[in-house]
Amino acid sequence: MSARGPASLDALTTALRRLPGVGARSAQRFAYHLLQHDREAALEISRALADSVARIRHCARCNTFTEREVCETCESSRRDASLLCVVETPADQLMIEQTHSYPGLYFVLMGRLSPIEGVGPRDIHFERLLARACDGVVAEVILATNFTQEGEATAHYLGEMLRARGLRVSRLARGVPVGSELEYVDASTIAHALRDRRGVD
Amino acid sequence: MSARGPASLDALTTALRRLPGVGARSAQRFAYHLLQHDREAALEISRALADSVARIRHCARCNTFTEREVCETCESSRRDASLLCVVETPADQLMIEQTHSYPGLYFVLMGRLSPIEGVGPRDIHFERLLARACDGVVAEVILATNFTQEGEATAHYLGEMLRARGLRVSRLARGVPVGSELEYVDASTIAHALRDRRGVD
Repeated sequence: MSARGPASLDALTTALRRLPGVGARSAQRFAYHLLQHDREAALEISRALADSVARIRHCARCNTFTEREVCETCESSRRDASLLCVVETPADQLMIEQTHSYPGLYFVLMGRLSPIEGVGPRDIHFERLLARACDGVVAEVILATNFTQEGEATAHYLGEMLRARGLRVSRLARGVPVGSELEYVDASTIAHALRDRRGVD
Repeated sequence: MSARGPASLDALTTALRRLPGVGARSAQRFAYHLLQHDREAALEISRALADSVARIRHCARCNTFTEREVCETCESSRRDASLLCVVETPADQLMIEQTHSYPGLYFVLMGRLSPIEGVGPRDIHFERLLARACDGVVAEVILATNFTQEGEATAHYLGEMLRARGLRVSRLARGVPVGSELEYVDASTIAHALRDRRGVD
C-alpha cells in the first residue's frame, strides 16, 4: 500500500461514494469492513445490484417499481379502481400499503415539482397521470405527496389540473400525529388540526 | 407492489443492510436512489465489489490489503527495514503514509485485542507479527494502535511480548492535537502532554 490503496480497493471506495449521503470516510469503512469481515455480503450486494438493475422497471399503469409490465397492485381485481392515490415515491406507496387501510390504486410520481432543481411536470410524468386519472373509472384522486414545501406545491399544481378535468380531488388530512404530545407538536400542525377537527359521536 | 416490493428490490434492500451501520431506512434509500436516479452507479458498485473480492488478499509479510503476494511497500527497497510500525487497520496505515514522514515498514493487525468480543492474540496474527519482528533486521517496533482502551491494551500486550524478545519498542506520542485550543482538549491528554513536554531550542 502506497499513499493510496490497491487499485481494486480504490475503485470500490470510489464506487461506494456514489451512494446518497456516503462520503469518503463511510465509503472506506464499508469497503474495509466487507473485505475484512464479510466477503460473502460483498458478493451478495454485488449480485443483488446487478439483478435488480436487470429486473426492475416501472409499471406501465402506476409507474411504481415492478418486475412486470403492469404491477401486481394494478392488476389486482380486489382493488377499488375508482380511487387513485398519488404519491412521490415507491417508499411512500409502501408506507400507505402497510396501513392496510387503503383499498384503491396508485400513481407514483417518482419525484416532486422543484423549480430550483429543474424538476418540472414532465419529470413527474404529469401527462401520464392525467391520462391515468381520466380513464373514466377513477372518481377521486387522493393527493398524498409529502407535507414539505415542494410536496405541497406539487399537490396544489396537480389538484388544480385534475379539478379542471372534472375529477374529485382530496388531500391527506393534516393533524396531530398519533401518540404525540401537544407540547411537542408545532403550532401550524395544531392550527390545521383545530380547523379540521372532527365531531365526536 | 404489495405490502412488500418486487422480489429483486427486496433482495437488494436486504443485502444493503449488511453494510456496517446501515439500517432498513438507509438500505431502502440507497436502493431506491440507485434504481431511480443512478443505475450506472449501481452497476459500477456491483462490479467493484465482485472485482475487489476476487483481487484483494493480505500481504504475506505485513498483512495489509494488496492485490499481490507481497505488497508494494514491503517490496520497496527505499524503505527503512529496521523500523516496523504496528497498526490496527489498513486505514490507519494509509493515514500514516499520508503524513509522508514515516520511512519504515508496517505490520497490520487487522483488529485489536478485545476479550469482550472474543478477539484474542491469534485473531490479530500475533505469531506472524512476532516472526516478522524477529527477522534480525527490525531494530525498533513502533506501536501505533489506537489510543482507545482496547488499542492501549493491545499496545501494552504487544510491547511486553516484543520487549521480552529483546526488541526496542516505542509508542506514538500522546499530546495536544495540532491546531487545537487547550480549552477544548481533555484533561488526560493535557496531562500526557505535560509529562512528555519537549525542550525548546
